[in-house]
Amino acid sequence: MRWRDRIEHLYRQASAGPGAIPLGGGFPAPHLFPSDALADASSRVLHQLGQQVLQYDWPEGQEALRVWIADRLRRRGADVEPEDVLVTSGAQQALAIAAALLLQEGDVVGMDPATYPGAVEIFAGRGARPCARRDAWARVLYRMPELANPTGRVMTGPEREALLARGVDVLEDEAYAELRFDGPPGEPLLARDREKVWHVGSFSKTLSPGMRVGWLVPPRCRFHEAAELKKLQDIQSNGLTQAALVDFLAHDDFDARLERSRRYYARQAEILMDACRRHLPDWRFEAPAGGFSLWLEAPTSGRGIDFLATAVRHGVTFDPGRMFHPGGRDGRLDLRVCFSGVSRKDLEEGARRLGAAWRDYRGSGGRLAR
Amino acid sequence: MRWRDRIEHLYRQASAGPGAIPLGGGFPAPHLFPSDALADASSRVLHQLGQQVLQYDWPEGQEALRVWIADRLRRRGADVEPEDVLVTSGAQQALAIAAALLLQEGDVVGMDPATYPGAVEIFAGRGARPCARRDAWARVLYRMPELANPTGRVMTGPEREALLARGVDVLEDEAYAELRFDGPPGEPLLARDREKVWHVGSFSKTLSPGMRVGWLVPPRCRFHEAAELKKLQDIQSNGLTQAALVDFLAHDDFDARLERSRRYYARQAEILMDACRRHLPDWRFEAPAGGFSLWLEAPTSGRGIDFLATAVRHGVTFDPGRMFHPGGRDGRLDLRVCFSGVSRKDLEEGARRLGAAWRDYRGSGGRLAR
Repeated sequence: MRWRDRIEHLYRQASAGPGAIPLGGGFPAPHLFPSDALADASSRVLHQLGQQVLQYDWPEGQEALRVWIADRLRRRGADVEPEDVLVTSGAQQALAIAAALLLQEGDVVGMDPATYPGAVEIFAGRGARPCARRDAWARVLYRMPELANPTGRVMTGPEREALLARGVDVLEDEAYAELRFDGPPGEPLLARDREKVWHVGSFSKTLSPGMRVGWLVPPRCRFHEAAELKKLQDIQSNGLTQAALVDFLAHDDFDARLERSRRYYARQAEILMDACRRHLPDWRFEAPAGGFSLWLEAPTSGRGIDFLATAVRHGVTFDPGRMFHPGGRDGRLDLRVCFSGVSRKDLEEGARRLGAAWRDYRGSGGRLAR
Repeated sequence: MRWRDRIEHLYRQASAGPGAIPLGGGFPAPHLFPSDALADASSRVLHQLGQQVLQYDWPEGQEALRVWIADRLRRRGADVEPEDVLVTSGAQQALAIAAALLLQEGDVVGMDPATYPGAVEIFAGRGARPCARRDAWARVLYRMPELANPTGRVMTGPEREALLARGVDVLEDEAYAELRFDGPPGEPLLARDREKVWHVGSFSKTLSPGMRVGWLVPPRCRFHEAAELKKLQDIQSNGLTQAALVDFLAHDDFDARLERSRRYYARQAEILMDACRRHLPDWRFEAPAGGFSLWLEAPTSGRGIDFLATAVRHGVTFDPGRMFHPGGRDGRLDLRVCFSGVSRKDLEEGARRLGAAWRDYRGSGGRLAR
């Protein structure tokens, strides 16, 4: 994984110094974090329930949080009871648990041609083979139907039909589902097949990634195994955070908050798209339906890591496309830029620097690199 | 793992109803949790650093917390810098990461004859073979030198010499090290061999298990792999909790707090030992040097799960010995009772009920069971 190390090195280098604009990383907008409300909630639960929330708990998570998550999924048509919900340390742990229970060495996992790198790494780490466009051989299909990272696409109805018709296990990742620009998400795949769909969600994009709260809804007959594995990995998720979240959700208008976030991110996307059209006029992208990012495709082939090194010199970072390709490098030069975590001014300036880096990279013969 | 499910079922059954005294579980005393101080700390960091602590972070953990942990280990003679410390979601995750990097399928792990069940399960889950008294074949040795769970033993100097002289990797678990009744822990094994010892610690027993903060100090050449695996499993540990802990430690006299906890648990141990001598006069145990529990050995063989079922009917629970034996059931009837999490009155009453359950179990021919 030398190339991953090199990307990380470039990121750390850029973030250590002043002035580099991070268009990579997929960070939520920090001003949207409900810091003060969470301070009140944490304070309340510690004063009122400290002896309980600071103690050991069962691995499946706190009842009130499981009720909230199940209710929300039920309102979207899924047959989910609180006892079906496993609270996890973020969506990442939910994916890791599902992968451990679903995959054997050598299994093919069908994925989009550009997809969430954390999932690719989990599947590869289990000895499985993450593949794009190999659904016919797949033992498991991984998708983000309501909003895909990094492309910002929503799966069409016929695509969902075809996916479920394959009859194999489906890992449905809804990390970004609540951040469609056009409003609340529709019916999850989980509502269509309760036996084959393993459903994953998270508060990381909607409230805070630093809190590490997500969930897994496995098929009912696998719940016990999933909870046992969770217990083996870290005993339980943070009890204080779970209780603070429940208290926060009882006091906050979460849907109004989501609506504000959707509007904010939609406007940010417009700004970055506009800046990219001006500064990278020969690159291609589709307007995202939500989420945090644009997926950019260069007019020529090239090496994303070399272009990233050039971009760092110009004071901007992005996520090289290779991270998102299940099959690894394929000569295309593509990348993810995020409009979510930086200011409007920085979006404009970041795109300008990316354009300058691109001219520099091309001028130095970068396009001729393999 | 049917027998583990049966134990869990009995526990859940007992904890759902009123009146059962839990002498199992290894719970810290809830009145020692610093609920109010943590409320203040959480509130401060959220108001002052909310946008930072609620955001994504690197997998290794927050710098200030790593500095605190490294300082403390350095004062005990270990060569540890902040960049050597991986913050984990409790000691359990630290053990899981170490096991994943140390063990191959079929490897023998040398353990005490009665040891921490969570470690046994992790090693078995990796396909390794946890064994007691098989150190000569062991690829890895797992020990809790400063204070062993469940026996409350401290390893002697010669035992430590012999352990390190084997020259294999050692997994040193210090979850209970700060709770020796006679004062602060001595030199960790890590101070003796920085290349072979993987060191694990936790705030679960000293401050709160519900916060899920522990650490792993692997050999320097393996740190990067450990951090990558942490990232794969859950991205990072809870940022709010890490920052609140740092703030709490800066405002609190942690060592004075530990001294109070040691005195409290030592007194609790005396009460339970005294009650056991009276109510279970034919059972054997050694006085623990610290920690949360007594390890009791029955005068006859028997089946711990059957005795637990009898005990539940008498309104008391304990941890059956089988959970702690790396090799599984062996006909001995032994068990862990914890003096840590219940009141003095309940210790006395719990031991009385255990005595009554024992007379009932023996009277029903339980001692003849395999």
